[in-house]
Amino acid sequence: METFVVVGGDAAGMSAASKAKRDDPEMEVVVFEKGQWVSYGACGLPYYIKGEIQSLEELVSITPEEFREERDIDLRTGHEVVDIDPDERTVTAESEDETVEQPYDHLLIATGAEPVLPPIDGLDLEGVYTLGSMSDGKELREYVSRARSEENLDQPDSGPACQFLEQCTGPVGVVGGGYIGVEMAEALTANGFEVHLFQRGDRILKGFSEATSDSVCAHLEAQDVAVYLGESVIEIEGDERATAVRTEGQRVPVEMALVGTGVRPRTDLAEDAGIELGETGAIAADAYRETNAPDVYAAGDCAEVEHVVTGEPAYVPLALTANRHGRAVGQTVTGTPSVGGAVAGTAAVKAFDIEAARTGLLNAEEAREAGFEPVTETIEAKSRAGYYPEGGTVEVTLTADRETGRVLGGSLTSEYGEGAVHRSHALVGAVTEGVAVAELANYDLAYAPPFNTTWDPVLTAAKVLEGKVNDS
Amino acid sequence: METFVVVGGDAAGMSAASKAKRDDPEMEVVVFEKGQWVSYGACGLPYYIKGEIQSLEELVSITPEEFREERDIDLRTGHEVVDIDPDERTVTAESEDETVEQPYDHLLIATGAEPVLPPIDGLDLEGVYTLGSMSDGKELREYVSRARSEENLDQPDSGPACQFLEQCTGPVGVVGGGYIGVEMAEALTANGFEVHLFQRGDRILKGFSEATSDSVCAHLEAQDVAVYLGESVIEIEGDERATAVRTEGQRVPVEMALVGTGVRPRTDLAEDAGIELGETGAIAADAYRETNAPDVYAAGDCAEVEHVVTGEPAYVPLALTANRHGRAVGQTVTGTPSVGGAVAGTAAVKAFDIEAARTGLLNAEEAREAGFEPVTETIEAKSRAGYYPEGGTVEVTLTADRETGRVLGGSLTSEYGEGAVHRSHALVGAVTEGVAVAELANYDLAYAPPFNTTWDPVLTAAKVLEGKVNDS
Repeated sequence: METFVVVGGDAAGMSAASKAKRDDPEMEVVVFEKGQWVSYGACGLPYYIKGEIQSLEELVSITPEEFREERDIDLRTGHEVVDIDPDERTVTAESEDETVEQPYDHLLIATGAEPVLPPIDGLDLEGVYTLGSMSDGKELREYVSRARSEENLDQPDSGPACQFLEQCTGPVGVVGGGYIGVEMAEALTANGFEVHLFQRGDRILKGFSEATSDSVCAHLEAQDVAVYLGESVIEIEGDERATAVRTEGQRVPVEMALVGTGVRPRTDLAEDAGIELGETGAIAADAYRETNAPDVYAAGDCAEVEHVVTGEPAYVPLALTANRHGRAVGQTVTGTPSVGGAVAGTAAVKAFDIEAARTGLLNAEEAREAGFEPVTETIEAKSRAGYYPEGGTVEVTLTADRETGRVLGGSLTSEYGEGAVHRSHALVGAVTEGVAVAELANYDLAYAPPFNTTWDPVLTAAKVLEGKVNDS
Repeated sequence: METFVVVGGDAAGMSAASKAKRDDPEMEVVVFEKGQWVSYGACGLPYYIKGEIQSLEELVSITPEEFREERDIDLRTGHEVVDIDPDERTVTAESEDETVEQPYDHLLIATGAEPVLPPIDGLDLEGVYTLGSMSDGKELREYVSRARSEENLDQPDSGPACQFLEQCTGPVGVVGGGYIGVEMAEALTANGFEVHLFQRGDRILKGFSEATSDSVCAHLEAQDVAVYLGESVIEIEGDERATAVRTEGQRVPVEMALVGTGVRPRTDLAEDAGIELGETGAIAADAYRETNAPDVYAAGDCAEVEHVVTGEPAYVPLALTANRHGRAVGQTVTGTPSVGGAVAGTAAVKAFDIEAARTGLLNAEEAREAGFEPVTETIEAKSRAGYYPEGGTVEVTLTADRETGRVLGGSLTSEYGEGAVHRSHALVGAVTEGVAVAELANYDLAYAPPFNTTWDPVLTAAKVLEGKVNDS
């Protein structure tokens, strides 16, 4: 009987464990998780803090008990793996009560990512939060509830919190304009806070197109979020509690600050075991997620992955990849070698009443480094037939290679519900399959008046970009 | 100076004329249209009859005056082309006042389609309608208004008519369960009619998957539409006015009957000129839409097209193809040979509160004829993250070839707004590019809790079907 050991009990780890046990019920599957939560939807934390989700437990898709009893997985929460010995094929885990040495035949490292904190003073003050874990989420929700209760406002415990629009308490700072920053700006505004969002670069959501960044930023401002672009935060001021966010040029008083400035892979354990990192700083792995150590795999937010457009390693820590690659490892270790597939860097975000998605290679410099000559076009088009009584606008940015016409990437935004995100599905296929923009423009996409114009906005963008590529 | 003549002024014809004039302003572009309406959105007629659109003019994207004055197109409405002479390169058109013989260098036949009527008695009775043209739409709307006014109900002239749910007048029959039948069932129910829908075959929307047909049918019934499956209509009874729909087994009293039993290509003019039809009965054309007669093109609902999966000719008369192929002809005749692309048979429909889309090859018999061995799976999945406070269910049917795993087709349905139609965009790419289901399952589709589960329903369907293909 073989033993499959997994380090880390979130998306990649539990997907691998579940798939391995399902495909080979004889295999012994042991998962070490240092915390108490497993298989949780960290992507849902902003909606929990907003008040649209009432308990952290709702974010857990499968409980530890279910993994143990229904799936027959030897899940050991509260166990931190402190050593991997690839020669002896063992891992050492410590809990409050014991130290365990566990042999393995196959090992998956799924240690995830941790927040990157900027090198500034004041991060240890009270009232400074990050949002990387379930306990971070719990603390932030408690802060929100406490602040509301000091102002004698109803607690956000019955239905969507976005109804509470009256301002309730002092200003708060959000440091970082990525997904977390944008989603938390919504969550905090919905709870009545005056939100100040600080972004070091010259636009928010920097992985999206400039047009999308600008559209989302304008929408945040229309919702009374104060957005500071090109403002590097140099200190969070305060004695015990945070009292202000200071940038080169400004000092903005706040009562709380959330720092959401990205994540980095947790690789210490792997590095100590002699497992190689790639050029991105994440654990290097082949298409089967196997590292340089035989039978040791790495998947999820701790590992780098191949980019569908460049074919080069990339670090894109997102939930679907973790699930997909975890599942593939579970299949591989039970005898069906499986690749989890490359990534297109696809991502989606909701910000108040708009939605946005991006996929592929959008950054001109990165495209040039990969050997392409990017041509970009942004169009705006109606989201439904012009005569149809509802609808809004979809803005589509498309980038293609000048010589081949190959679609390199795309970025879309629309009102929430008008389909920017689901429309991005068309572009993921085009980017993945290396489709030329002229071919994309000829795609036979679905049309009916309640859903789009005869030429879906994606097709219109392709048509316009095709003209630009041909003319250039 | 060359002359480009177009027969028929709707989607394909006006797209071609506009594109040709834009790409070569020196070209003389003459369009003959036998009616008075050009470039109209016939797909919007059900929403006009429903009362969500207030005037027929709203369905017109560009008026005849705009074509003439702004685009410099010699558009002659009220002119019916009665003869094409490919040897002399002339067409003969008749209006009330004149007969014109017009020479051409390039000719586009864009004569569209006409309703197919079943071979039954009673079609000429008062109160029997079809819905193929703008004037059909006008008559139906007048009928609805008249019926409502006889019952002293408010006219549907202020806002969505779906508010008027009280029943207002006698039962009506809809013969045919295709797009028109389904959309008109909604439009008539919204106006308070008791609707009886008769479908000859054993399910409605027969081009969709059985699961989609069943879901839409159940929804129609839940909206109090009486659906009669496997009931061939053999007569519409009445003296002057229609009074009942009679099938083999039943006689259902009605005050009006709408016959929506499909369309066929209008090919008489082409046939008389010696232009060949294909095996589908529509005008045969190559990838550039050129017929057997040199410099004579055919596009839109009168022509057959290549299917992306089978590579064989198909007859799929839909708006996007007409626009796309018309545009390609406009480019070709001005010196840039352009293919309009094949079709995937993609279609979308809204029925009350649900939406559905289909693409590719779904019919098992057709798939086998094309040399595939189809394997099909249908799954149901949540449309948004389980913990997210809104959302519904997406049902996805996928079909793949057993040997190669190639995705042949898909069909989806969901609540209206939950994204079945826009999600079909992912499948169009897969079908068009010949992607294997295992590869589709690895697509890096966008994910965030307000839009889907980590694995979008499309990916879940691919994953499940992949397992079935591998096991078989």
